[in-house]
Amino acid sequence: MIFLFTDFGAADIYVGQVKAVLAAQAPKVPVIDLLHEAPPFNVKAGAHILAALSTQIPQDSVTLAVVDPGVGGPREAVAVLADGRWFVGPDNGLLSVTAARAVAVEVHAIGWKPERLSASFHGRDLFAPVAAMLAGGRRKAAKLEKREQLAVILGADDLPEVIYVDHYGNLMTGIRAAALPRERTLTIEGRTIAHARVFSDAPAGKLFWYENSLGMVEIAASGASAQQMLGFAPGNRVD
Amino acid sequence: MIFLFTDFGAADIYVGQVKAVLAAQAPKVPVIDLLHEAPPFNVKAGAHILAALSTQIPQDSVTLAVVDPGVGGPREAVAVLADGRWFVGPDNGLLSVTAARAVAVEVHAIGWKPERLSASFHGRDLFAPVAAMLAGGRRKAAKLEKREQLAVILGADDLPEVIYVDHYGNLMTGIRAAALPRERTLTIEGRTIAHARVFSDAPAGKLFWYENSLGMVEIAASGASAQQMLGFAPGNRVD
Amino acid sequence: MIFLFTDFGAADIYVGQVKAVLAAQAPKVPVIDLLHEAPPFNVKAGAHILAALSTQIPQDSVTLAVVDPGVGGPREAVAVLADGRWFVGPDNGLLSVTAARAVAVEVHAIGWKPERLSASFHGRDLFAPVAAMLAGGRRKAAKLEKREQLAVILGADDLPEVIYVDHYGNLMTGIRAAALPRERTLTIEGRTIAHARVFSDAPAGKLFWYENSLGMVEIAASGASAQQMLGFAPGNRVD
Repeated sequence: MIFLFTDFGAADIYVGQVKAVLAAQAPKVPVIDLLHEAPPFNVKAGAHILAALSTQIPQDSVTLAVVDPGVGGPREAVAVLADGRWFVGPDNGLLSVTAARAVAVEVHAIGWKPERLSASFHGRDLFAPVAAMLAGGRRKAAKLEKREQLAVILGADDLPEVIYVDHYGNLMTGIRAAALPRERTLTIEGRTIAHARVFSDAPAGKLFWYENSLGMVEIAASGASAQQMLGFAPGNRVD
Repeated sequence: MIFLFTDFGAADIYVGQVKAVLAAQAPKVPVIDLLHEAPPFNVKAGAHILAALSTQIPQDSVTLAVVDPGVGGPREAVAVLADGRWFVGPDNGLLSVTAARAVAVEVHAIGWKPERLSASFHGRDLFAPVAAMLAGGRRKAAKLEKREQLAVILGADDLPEVIYVDHYGNLMTGIRAAALPRERTLTIEGRTIAHARVFSDAPAGKLFWYENSLGMVEIAASGASAQQMLGFAPGNRVD
Repeated sequence: MIFLFTDFGAADIYVGQVKAVLAAQAPKVPVIDLLHEAPPFNVKAGAHILAALSTQIPQDSVTLAVVDPGVGGPREAVAVLADGRWFVGPDNGLLSVTAARAVAVEVHAIGWKPERLSASFHGRDLFAPVAAMLAGGRRKAAKLEKREQLAVILGADDLPEVIYVDHYGNLMTGIRAAALPRERTLTIEGRTIAHARVFSDAPAGKLFWYENSLGMVEIAASGASAQQMLGFAPGNRVD
């Protein structure tokens, strides 16, 4: 199975071109869109969203992960094997939170180069063919070279910021909820926010935080948009 | 074949997680996105859009249908067999218009429970595995318990409201067009709207109503957005 | 392989209905969404975007291409074989730029008619079944009738206009970059824009033009939205 995680835009011209490559080079492998609306160019938020979503990615899979503002520059291409799941993408920190939280990690530079490499779309020209090789059992073709570690490492720690705003207006943070006591309140711009188990337990229109379905702390409002109430976007701080 | 009908957002993080479950548990079954932009939390509009779209769903299929503001609360999970097509979702009225308009209907409570059930994402944790069971010929695994009827029933009647606004700005109503004489005019906010067969028959920029490709009454404007001209949204009344 | 190129909207109710037809009538053929956000009703821009994207479409494929403001009117339905790739759609100019740039072209009127043809959704009722026939090796069923040429021909020349705005705010033009010297500057609304190879080579926040990954001239700004800086939309002129 191949998963796609990018900032290419779900409705834009880029994802179809990636899928054309995958369909040609890994013909019978299912391809699943995990997210194409990662905050554009925002590697830090993307790295934490990917780490949260990767808990839902099964083993023996390949994830093409691209948020790549430095495309065409000197950053390297890597393939990371984290707890039995491959991640292929730029070595700019995007894969590093997932890698840091995994028990077993292997980092590989990608030696294979395409005949034609566009300056701006390595997702299509480089990462998709390599993902197809790994998903199709042609690992040798990718010319992987084992390395000690990633070049850019953001670390395994929680990120006390909004990392993603969904279309309901819920604000997912980079804080894992497991360690947070339910009686704990959060503070955003001087506002104090208490816990609720789920939307149907919270008073209508009132802000609350809850453990979302990825195990992350999320700020929401029952029947309303927390984003509109708070005006928050990826990068805003949560304490 | 599995169809998906939700308010999860087409570009958001939720659909991919549902598809990961389906790909793992019903590996070779095609999955088709019918709609992920049902008006958020709006069960009534969703029920009428689903009934309209279900005319395009072939037999021997399973539709996962989720608009579920009460997720995590006491509402039950059901599987409805309507004229040879399964619908799996919350028992909150969403499936009831489709069921009421079908000739042959069976209602089943879902007895199967997942090992881990998140509070807010039953689409992934409960409905997707059950849809995979039904589509994969493992009906027994779902532990269906036949019931007399759905708990919440919205009824089979037409709904004289806007139920969906498409990206062209066309306003689909919950009124089936077959019974409406073509000489009939509609009234919205005091404006009178006449019939045209299709966009290319209507004067540019003028509002008209027509029978859309689902057989529903739809208000549109040739080369313009009826939504922008009228400012209408799901829930607004049409007479 | 079947590719879809439309202005149906990626998040709307239309694409799923087309895919339901394809899944039923060409069951094992992969279907790839190339673009569903072609500028609505804009045949000229759509024709040039399709020609640019078609460079990424492999041979032995079928592309369903629909931007069709005249649906339900007198325009014909055609199937064009351009350099080994089928394109199925309305004969309103949409396929004509792709056809004009191909080395080997055959134009066919579509003789097959569905039992039920809605007035407004030929993508589902006519073009999808024909695409399924061609992709499934049932060409005879489509009742193709060879013709001299398309009825509406936009021509092979470059189009010195913005044809597409992506979600980063980059402005793709209808000018092929291969023939444009890199020292050439472009002019938009009195502003002069110089070339850069790629985003990471351009000064932050400054407009530049580059050869995009489809070989087209594109106007962009590093770490910023050229669309917001210029306010440009499809149809605006570039010199």
